[in-house]
Amino acid sequence: MSQPEPGAVVDLLGVLAYAELTAFDRLAEDARLAPTLTGRAALARMAAAEIAHHVRLTDRLVELGADPAAAMAPFTSALDTFHESTRPSTWLEGLVKAYVGDGLAADFYREIAAFLPEPDRLLVLEVLDDTGHADFAVREVRAAIVADRRLAGRLALWGRRLVGEAISRSQAVIAEHDGLADLIITGTGDLAGVGRLIERITSAHTERMTTLGLNP
Amino acid sequence: MSQPEPGAVVDLLGVLAYAELTAFDRLAEDARLAPTLTGRAALARMAAAEIAHHVRLTDRLVELGADPAAAMAPFTSALDTFHESTRPSTWLEGLVKAYVGDGLAADFYREIAAFLPEPDRLLVLEVLDDTGHADFAVREVRAAIVADRRLAGRLALWGRRLVGEAISRSQAVIAEHDGLADLIITGTGDLAGVGRLIERITSAHTERMTTLGLNP
Repeated sequence: MSQPEPGAVVDLLGVLAYAELTAFDRLAEDARLAPTLTGRAALARMAAAEIAHHVRLTDRLVELGADPAAAMAPFTSALDTFHESTRPSTWLEGLVKAYVGDGLAADFYREIAAFLPEPDRLLVLEVLDDTGHADFAVREVRAAIVADRRLAGRLALWGRRLVGEAISRSQAVIAEHDGLADLIITGTGDLAGVGRLIERITSAHTERMTTLGLNP
Repeated sequence: MSQPEPGAVVDLLGVLAYAELTAFDRLAEDARLAPTLTGRAALARMAAAEIAHHVRLTDRLVELGADPAAAMAPFTSALDTFHESTRPSTWLEGLVKAYVGDGLAADFYREIAAFLPEPDRLLVLEVLDDTGHADFAVREVRAAIVADRRLAGRLALWGRRLVGEAISRSQAVIAEHDGLADLIITGTGDLAGVGRLIERITSAHTERMTTLGLNP
């Protein structure tokens, strides 16, 4: 496989570093919607884990001679818009977003990371490791649905809206960053490869919705 | 020195655990006021450090057989009221609050920690270790004052308001928790000891205001 251009690596680390910073923000904000102190502390811990990841990514950017703030800057508007347009209005919507939205994003970044040289491939895979969202969110959402079946329909709609927004934002980001687009096309080999990548991401998403007890 | 009653230790760890959780909340919120991505990331890192402290305190509460949420519960209202009544409206007010307010609180908790048996004394001293607020806040506030002298007067007033609110809230909390009150009176020895404790805290506060370039 040909080496990606250095700019693409900085782009990917930059977008991920900013994604972790916004994930922190969002989890910190959603923590305030928690119905219990225990739930609030759980979300705050997840937010702190995102910052640990953010720090590892910015440290690596500095190592590569890049300015972290400059590497993140091109992606702030797309990610901010995504979060603004999918602001949870309830504790459960926040959890579905943390699980389904972050899961989808992590799958996508993981696919791209496979095309990176070491040590960046491993770094990206490590920072994408689940920070405890998964179990916690699944447990809370499933329990809530059992207690009130009507929630399932509403949360399933919310999950679908999240995916729609995520896909349109990702397409916009890739279209604006030739390095990232090249990385994906070269990495997957051809358009059929891109198709298979999208299929893998979509089927993992369907599985997550099912795990939550929601109709994909 | 006589051993404090176990309830007082749980009270102190409980109020501190909740203080760290609210510090996280507040730093996460203030991070959004940051004028730069670098400043925003710096505050997010500090917030994450508070959560690491929070986790150590709740782990210890569990070890002592206490339920962390129950140990924090009696203090949520006083601390929430303090933060509601001193919500920064600018980035600089947030930094002054982080430095002056957290410094004052840390001094106070440190004084009380001196009366605790080990390992709790050491645990409290460790979680009160500066998480990097100090240098960062001092640098930013001093630079801002140099650029615009009028800020000094406004921020000095803000600092004084913070202290006033902090003192009245602390008094209310101590008055409502006999264990904490006993701990302080027994630890300091007598009323003269309480007076010296207050003097030490006040003079450290004056020093912090001066360090920021503000009239105490």
